[in-house]
Amino acid sequence: MPELRQDPVTGRWVLIASNRADRPNEFSGPTPPRIAKTPCPFCAGQLCTPPPVAIYGSDDDWQLRVVPNLYPALTTAPAADVREDGFFRKSPAAGWHEVIIESPRHLKSLSELSASQSQLVFRAYRDRMLVMRQQGHVACALPFKNVGPAAGASLEHVHSQIVGLPMVPPVLLEELQGAQRHFQQHGDCVFCRMIREELAQQQRVVIANEHFVAFCPHASRFGYETWVLPRDHTACFDEIDDEHLVELGGLVKQLVSRLEDDCGVTSYNYLVHSAPFDRSRGDHYHWHIEIIPRVVQVAGFEWGTGININPVLPEQAAIQLRRNAFLRIYEEYSDQKN
Amino acid sequence: MPELRQDPVTGRWVLIASNRADRPNEFSGPTPPRIAKTPCPFCAGQLCTPPPVAIYGSDDDWQLRVVPNLYPALTTAPAADVREDGFFRKSPAAGWHEVIIESPRHLKSLSELSASQSQLVFRAYRDRMLVMRQQGHVACALPFKNVGPAAGASLEHVHSQIVGLPMVPPVLLEELQGAQRHFQQHGDCVFCRMIREELAQQQRVVIANEHFVAFCPHASRFGYETWVLPRDHTACFDEIDDEHLVELGGLVKQLVSRLEDDCGVTSYNYLVHSAPFDRSRGDHYHWHIEIIPRVVQVAGFEWGTGININPVLPEQAAIQLRRNAFLRIYEEYSDQKN
Repeated sequence: MPELRQDPVTGRWVLIASNRADRPNEFSGPTPPRIAKTPCPFCAGQLCTPPPVAIYGSDDDWQLRVVPNLYPALTTAPAADVREDGFFRKSPAAGWHEVIIESPRHLKSLSELSASQSQLVFRAYRDRMLVMRQQGHVACALPFKNVGPAAGASLEHVHSQIVGLPMVPPVLLEELQGAQRHFQQHGDCVFCRMIREELAQQQRVVIANEHFVAFCPHASRFGYETWVLPRDHTACFDEIDDEHLVELGGLVKQLVSRLEDDCGVTSYNYLVHSAPFDRSRGDHYHWHIEIIPRVVQVAGFEWGTGININPVLPEQAAIQLRRNAFLRIYEEYSDQKN
Repeated sequence: MPELRQDPVTGRWVLIASNRADRPNEFSGPTPPRIAKTPCPFCAGQLCTPPPVAIYGSDDDWQLRVVPNLYPALTTAPAADVREDGFFRKSPAAGWHEVIIESPRHLKSLSELSASQSQLVFRAYRDRMLVMRQQGHVACALPFKNVGPAAGASLEHVHSQIVGLPMVPPVLLEELQGAQRHFQQHGDCVFCRMIREELAQQQRVVIANEHFVAFCPHASRFGYETWVLPRDHTACFDEIDDEHLVELGGLVKQLVSRLEDDCGVTSYNYLVHSAPFDRSRGDHYHWHIEIIPRVVQVAGFEWGTGININPVLPEQAAIQLRRNAFLRIYEEYSDQKN
């Protein structure tokens, strides 16, 4: 029987309806193949992008490069005030929009990257966030990845993006407000609490290693949705150190491999949620990564209500993603069960 | 240059970035054809649904029928209180979920229905809402349509759905709060004001007839997004009379035809937004239909920020949807320009 579940951070409701997984689908079929109308603009030797803003490796032998987006959703034009057009309000979309090209070769997935290459992706996010933090008119940054046509990707070559936003956007604002509310009521961080609860229940944890915990959240909006949180309370992603970067790169690569191999996921997004640059606004926030597989299309119900329908029970998703292995949780943390 | 626009009702921001329409897309291709694994369950003669709750026409010669959804997202089980599972909250998803089969024949689009058949669709919404209104545990109803795989449809046969929800969902709540806020500040309905502004500016109006106005909203989230509002201030859709039903059926059919023929839209949703059944909550609300074509996939930016990127300028969308025809606005209303 379908049930409504509430996200403990934002208060957002989600409809978990595993009965709907059995619906016939006249349109389901294999992912359409790539139709290469032009040479891939991200492959070494045929690059077709603006000049890089950062290169890892050397100019001639690069491993990863960051370039301005050729079709930016936000531009680095100076910020301007909101213009009132009588009843209607608008403003120029000032900000930053960059592309992280994660390999010189035409690979399709983070799971194909080496471990060292994978940590480099997250290192690049950190470095670019540190640069954006210096810009007065950028309120916060969002690194994200689109893979596969159903997740809004338009190019196949392994890459991700980072935007710098002129304001704190609604999704982050809701999370900040939820974290603030929880702190006022309970005196602790809602994300730290969630980690403790998940480790104690052991129903939805997928991987728990030294510095990070990955689980399918109780109120998952998407089938096989998986969150990655650092165990230590840290508000801003760009505070991450090298040791954490290495572990994070390996962990996300592992999760993506399992989503692809064990859950049939071909399209997904991930989002790196980090506190705004104004440090006074993020005290009770806890940075994290949300991996959202795009297995089922968002339809009229979701757009009309704001409530996602998820046909995969999060507890079942976690079993699949654990590969049915016994969950090994570091000893020092399993004490928290009591 | 991309710009941010704000929805005057909810305060929701949207990114209008027509520069992104030129992005190369390695995955774009024709809509995948229907793969009929089983006979269509909605065709007359081979119906495979629960028994109908309403039939238009006769049992043997039906024109339209309403059936319970075989895979309901909400069930008519009695409502129950929220259960606190320690830190996590959930409740059974109590409500109604019905399917409106809009033709006995295997048609694919509302644009293929006759005018009388099209008004019957909206008549069925009204009638079912009137029934749901009698149920104590249903807070509001949402009729909606999913067409095409990119809009989350799983069956091709022309149909729509209606859900009765146990609570007022976030999207409707935001609109109610926005309407309330506007009324407190300005003393009028924000939707009535929007109609006046659109008719005065004439930049985004697509069709304006006796009882309804259709326009591409200033802060359209989707390319070719089109809203239909009754000119008269009415909070609840189920107050609609027969004369309005006939005009509405013809208008929506016409809009869908133009989206298909002139804008290349093959997948879309529409949503009928109506005030909650508790009449004290909807004084300043104004029912309307939102048609949202699903031309571009929602990607990581949208899920990470809550801000949609729309690559089609609403003013340009309106020109295409008007078929470049001179906009004829009923005389008595164009006075409102002054």
